Amino acid sequence: MEIGMIGLGRMGASMVRRLLRAGHHCVVYDVHPAASQPLVQEGAVGGSSLGEFVQKLKSPRAIWLMVPAAVVDSTITGLVPLLSPGDIVIDGGNSYYHDDIRRATELKPKGIHYVDVGTSGGVWGADRGYCLMIGGEQAVIQHLDPVFATLAPGIEAAPRTPSRQHVATPNSNVGTAERGYLHCGPNGAGHFVKMVHNGIEYGLMAAYAEGMNILRHANAGKTAVTADAETTPLRHPEHYQYDLNLADIAEVWRRGSVISSWLLDLTAIALFENSDLSKFAGRVSDSGEGRWTVQAAIDEAVPIPVLSAALFERFSSRGEAGFADKLLSALRFQFGGHHEKADEPKPEHGGIQ
Amino acid sequence: MEIGMIGLGRMGASMVRRLLRAGHHCVVYDVHPAASQPLVQEGAVGGSSLGEFVQKLKSPRAIWLMVPAAVVDSTITGLVPLLSPGDIVIDGGNSYYHDDIRRATELKPKGIHYVDVGTSGGVWGADRGYCLMIGGEQAVIQHLDPVFATLAPGIEAAPRTPSRQHVATPNSNVGTAERGYLHCGPNGAGHFVKMVHNGIEYGLMAAYAEGMNILRHANAGKTAVTADAETTPLRHPEHYQYDLNLADIAEVWRRGSVISSWLLDLTAIALFENSDLSKFAGRVSDSGEGRWTVQAAIDEAVPIPVLSAALFERFSSRGEAGFADKLLSALRFQFGGHHEKADEPKPEHGGIQ
Amino acid sequence: MEIGMIGLGRMGASMVRRLLRAGHHCVVYDVHPAASQPLVQEGAVGGSSLGEFVQKLKSPRAIWLMVPAAVVDSTITGLVPLLSPGDIVIDGGNSYYHDDIRRATELKPKGIHYVDVGTSGGVWGADRGYCLMIGGEQAVIQHLDPVFATLAPGIEAAPRTPSRQHVATPNSNVGTAERGYLHCGPNGAGHFVKMVHNGIEYGLMAAYAEGMNILRHANAGKTAVTADAETTPLRHPEHYQYDLNLADIAEVWRRGSVISSWLLDLTAIALFENSDLSKFAGRVSDSGEGRWTVQAAIDEAVPIPVLSAALFERFSSRGEAGFADKLLSALRFQFGGHHEKADEPKPEHGGIQ
Amino acid sequence: MEIGMIGLGRMGASMVRRLLRAGHHCVVYDVHPAASQPLVQEGAVGGSSLGEFVQKLKSPRAIWLMVPAAVVDSTITGLVPLLSPGDIVIDGGNSYYHDDIRRATELKPKGIHYVDVGTSGGVWGADRGYCLMIGGEQAVIQHLDPVFATLAPGIEAAPRTPSRQHVATPNSNVGTAERGYLHCGPNGAGHFVKMVHNGIEYGLMAAYAEGMNILRHANAGKTAVTADAETTPLRHPEHYQYDLNLADIAEVWRRGSVISSWLLDLTAIALFENSDLSKFAGRVSDSGEGRWTVQAAIDEAVPIPVLSAALFERFSSRGEAGFADKLLSALRFQFGGHHEKADEPKPEHGGIQ
Repeated sequence: MEIGMIGLGRMGASMVRRLLRAGHHCVVYDVHPAASQPLVQEGAVGGSSLGEFVQKLKSPRAIWLMVPAAVVDSTITGLVPLLSPGDIVIDGGNSYYHDDIRRATELKPKGIHYVDVGTSGGVWGADRGYCLMIGGEQAVIQHLDPVFATLAPGIEAAPRTPSRQHVATPNSNVGTAERGYLHCGPNGAGHFVKMVHNGIEYGLMAAYAEGMNILRHANAGKTAVTADAETTPLRHPEHYQYDLNLADIAEVWRRGSVISSWLLDLTAIALFENSDLSKFAGRVSDSGEGRWTVQAAIDEAVPIPVLSAALFERFSSRGEAGFADKLLSALRFQFGGHHEKADEPKPEHGGIQ
Repeated sequence: MEIGMIGLGRMGASMVRRLLRAGHHCVVYDVHPAASQPLVQEGAVGGSSLGEFVQKLKSPRAIWLMVPAAVVDSTITGLVPLLSPGDIVIDGGNSYYHDDIRRATELKPKGIHYVDVGTSGGVWGADRGYCLMIGGEQAVIQHLDPVFATLAPGIEAAPRTPSRQHVATPNSNVGTAERGYLHCGPNGAGHFVKMVHNGIEYGLMAAYAEGMNILRHANAGKTAVTADAETTPLRHPEHYQYDLNLADIAEVWRRGSVISSWLLDLTAIALFENSDLSKFAGRVSDSGEGRWTVQAAIDEAVPIPVLSAALFERFSSRGEAGFADKLLSALRFQFGGHHEKADEPKPEHGGIQ
Repeated sequence: MEIGMIGLGRMGASMVRRLLRAGHHCVVYDVHPAASQPLVQEGAVGGSSLGEFVQKLKSPRAIWLMVPAAVVDSTITGLVPLLSPGDIVIDGGNSYYHDDIRRATELKPKGIHYVDVGTSGGVWGADRGYCLMIGGEQAVIQHLDPVFATLAPGIEAAPRTPSRQHVATPNSNVGTAERGYLHCGPNGAGHFVKMVHNGIEYGLMAAYAEGMNILRHANAGKTAVTADAETTPLRHPEHYQYDLNLADIAEVWRRGSVISSWLLDLTAIALFENSDLSKFAGRVSDSGEGRWTVQAAIDEAVPIPVLSAALFERFSSRGEAGFADKLLSALRFQFGGHHEKADEPKPEHGGIQ
Repeated sequence: MEIGMIGLGRMGASMVRRLLRAGHHCVVYDVHPAASQPLVQEGAVGGSSLGEFVQKLKSPRAIWLMVPAAVVDSTITGLVPLLSPGDIVIDGGNSYYHDDIRRATELKPKGIHYVDVGTSGGVWGADRGYCLMIGGEQAVIQHLDPVFATLAPGIEAAPRTPSRQHVATPNSNVGTAERGYLHCGPNGAGHFVKMVHNGIEYGLMAAYAEGMNILRHANAGKTAVTADAETTPLRHPEHYQYDLNLADIAEVWRRGSVISSWLLDLTAIALFENSDLSKFAGRVSDSGEGRWTVQAAIDEAVPIPVLSAALFERFSSRGEAGFADKLLSALRFQFGGHHEKADEPKPEHGGIQ
């Protein structure tokens, strides 16, 4: 079918290519005209302006936005006057689902349909296909099914879930969930599910990261520590004498273990390429989804100690705990005379509080 | 090669079968004689007593223990007088690595070698193979290589890690990590790595569980809540109107998403079979590894907010927070006159603290 | 000075009494007329309707609302048509500071001033005085100073902070912070500071509660536990043989220890009166402030692992983790065949994962 | 009564002075002879060697050790040959209670009594008195009562707990808990209670520190942030426009609020003296008690999300999360091409995962 794509960055361009390869007709546009050229050479139709882009699409138009969340609203504002009733705007980026609900409500009186699509797959999606979590009206999403089916990885991307095989007889249709895309619910449901997906992702990543950190320090007993009142000596240094090969450990867990996963595959790659991860400083960004996940959980009164700890670990990695830590030091100084610096005189009984 | 197996429960029996199928010679023993019979019919040699079991093995013997951690020491105590210098005792269960270090030290003067093997794979290992994390002496583990290679899943169990392919030329040996087993270090290293593996597992499981809990309550806005001073009303019920199909969501994430994993595969199975998980009460056991992981992290001064939160979530699921919660209620009553029960009179300004 | 009070529940009535005792002129109103009577007998002027209440106040009126957060907006809506430019509306309840900002903006064109006051002190405030955190316009708050000064505990309520004594010479004015009330900033600042105050309160309460829970289980080694694969036995039961008197421990900490506090005073009362806290079920409510604190921290990218954990502990106490826990049990069943119930057959190697 | 004191650092010297002032007879010793001189001038008897120190004490001797935990064992080893049956050794430092149990067991056959005393009060204890948590034999502790009563703050140090007043009639004895010292249980109980006390202290400190960090960033909306895919913009900067005076806020909370405490008093001092805490780097040490508290909780299966988070916050403040954070960055690079550094090219849709 025909689809318009606005935003030809890495993700948008990859999606266009995947669609073109499957025989879909793609009209493309980017604020940077140069971004269109390679895709036009591969079979897409380019629009030199937003107006021309819209004109080159047949009604009812289906226009997929693959732009940063921060410019989705301004893009829609520019687009709407050019559209006709029955057209469809799809936001495939990382919008907050509150915005989806608002946008759908705003576009409805104009007869324009809005679809929110949470997209997972990262830079690997071009080859693997994208996992699509979709929110919007049933009929509209049904209409777009060929596009979703092409972008998604397809059923062969994973072994089938046993019980589902018995349900889906050869003659019955396999649900789209097994093919890698899902109509989750009304507007916002797509990005809501994607939001929680990313919240889970933070938790998974932190679990591996913390575990690897323990393994890396399994030789802590080899370091001699002088006894002073400020430092707790290791009671049993003989238990921490292991110099472990983290890349090999990540690798061995990939086969047969309970914790094998795609993130573990990436961990094995990262550690094999740079075993001490010296290429990285450890300042970890967070995108909105992790934060919005915590907010949703609080609104729902759902306890999420793990997901929130993972988010806060990222904040801390960027120094955001600094003032709190300074207050802890200040209090320790106040009640115990504990000095922070190693070269200052220490109280004989610094630990007495 | 020849291997003796003590402990023919589900795990031990499955391992014997996997070894027999690969042509190894297995001598088996269990405190319950009936447990040996089916394996004998499949080609194993049975010992009716521990003495007979040992006698049927040729020196140097390799004896694999697959018994609960709590009886490993007593089993070894019974076994040692029957062994000869050069024999090997392998503990394939879930021992605390401190015990491995101690046992290896105790057995060394007797000339008996000790090997600790952390085994992952659960009930699926019979088919998938077992991920093996091994600690002990280099030569001994080299000697046992055929057994480990058979029990492990093998290189085909997962796509190869890209950079490793370039390193391992067709003529060079592929490391054992890629085949699913790894000599991690000296005694205790196997169970140390397995311990952290399980610590990570707790974190991963909790991340999925918390995320699914958020999704399940995405319809929180549909429930009318009466306003009183004790209850915080949802400010925006319109944001929580989704009735999500959790089984389909778990399924769609299995293909192309960043959070696909074997635990997600199991989540998809569990939710498809019993969408509201009504078969479970939610009292979650924890085995020693999760606890020991926290202790190791603390000894190493490694922060693990996520892994510890996952452990504490399990404690809480069993009611262990009860007294702390009661104290919170008692304090709320002390300072604010807040009553716990809905049918007691409530202060008009219960929330003023 | 003259002050009007709407809402004569425990808090509002206590405040009126404190104001009357100090010679202020109080006009009072409550939707339940009976609530006014005792105060009128003590010297307050009662209004039988909102209109009469307003009429009995001289311009510029200062009207203090002490009503549940959920009805502040409707109360203001009913009040505004009766007010004149220059009048002041004070919200002394637990409003979300976002609402303060909105209300101040809405009332400004009408010439009505809005002041938000976060009030701490609970049921003890009648005697101890209330700690007041105030947001609004400088001149307006200056105008209300006599009321704040009366409601606050006064400088003698705590020993002076040493360095402040040197700064405030006998002739200089002591700042209001030392007297127990503070103009924190523009509108919303009062409830913002009160919000964080309550967030901290949750953390403090949880710290005591968790610690007491550890002390209560210091006799864990006295309970014999049968060894099975699902239960981790205590390695050193000899370390957990203490039957501790929690009421005495809370009491001894009140004098000379680093952790003495008003919440500890209450803990000592609660444990002395009911040592096993059997009067409480342990279902702990949370008011909005704890949740809003987490949201503010996330907006600011400030890591708050402790404050959030305290909030989630409350959610869990009410069973909100239930579905997550069920999924953990379901996963343990899937990968390890672990059954939840003690009376079901258990795998011999349940712990092997 | 007569008491010997070994270890004349800040804590030990202060205790001797408090005892001398109350008329007790003190014999003192320190490995640094100069440490004895000022105390001798104030009335103590000095021992120039350990042998002389012991000889100057009358049997049965009561010897209080106030030395770093790391040298308690060696001090006892040097002391024991000089002692006689019936003598008492008191460890007033921060020993691990496991060591208390072991020492008491070792000394028992020699007829030497061991008493463990957890001491709280820090550098302020000299004036305020010390909160003492005591473990050991009933009769021995009864014998030492005059010393404990002198060192403790006394009943006047805090208002009496209401219900206790009714119980203790004028003629009955007030329990020692109300006077600031408590016989908690058999050996180890004193340090066990002190351990949990410090665990709670970590939680309390972290609660204040996190709250203050939120308040400090209440002006986050004033900072313009450029929109890029890596940074989540603040959705409502208008809600974060407050420049708060933290010293005044800590001060106002000291009077009448639910969160008033001695640690808050210290917070008020610290923030008044150095409002941005620029004198501190924020590297926060931890002593053994915080770690042992977590271990005890885990042994008892008691969930302590708050206390553990407080401990991990300290680890993180010292950079111990570094490798975990690096792995998070490495994973983000693997799946999304996310670069850490601001000056590297960023993907247009960095947030798409």
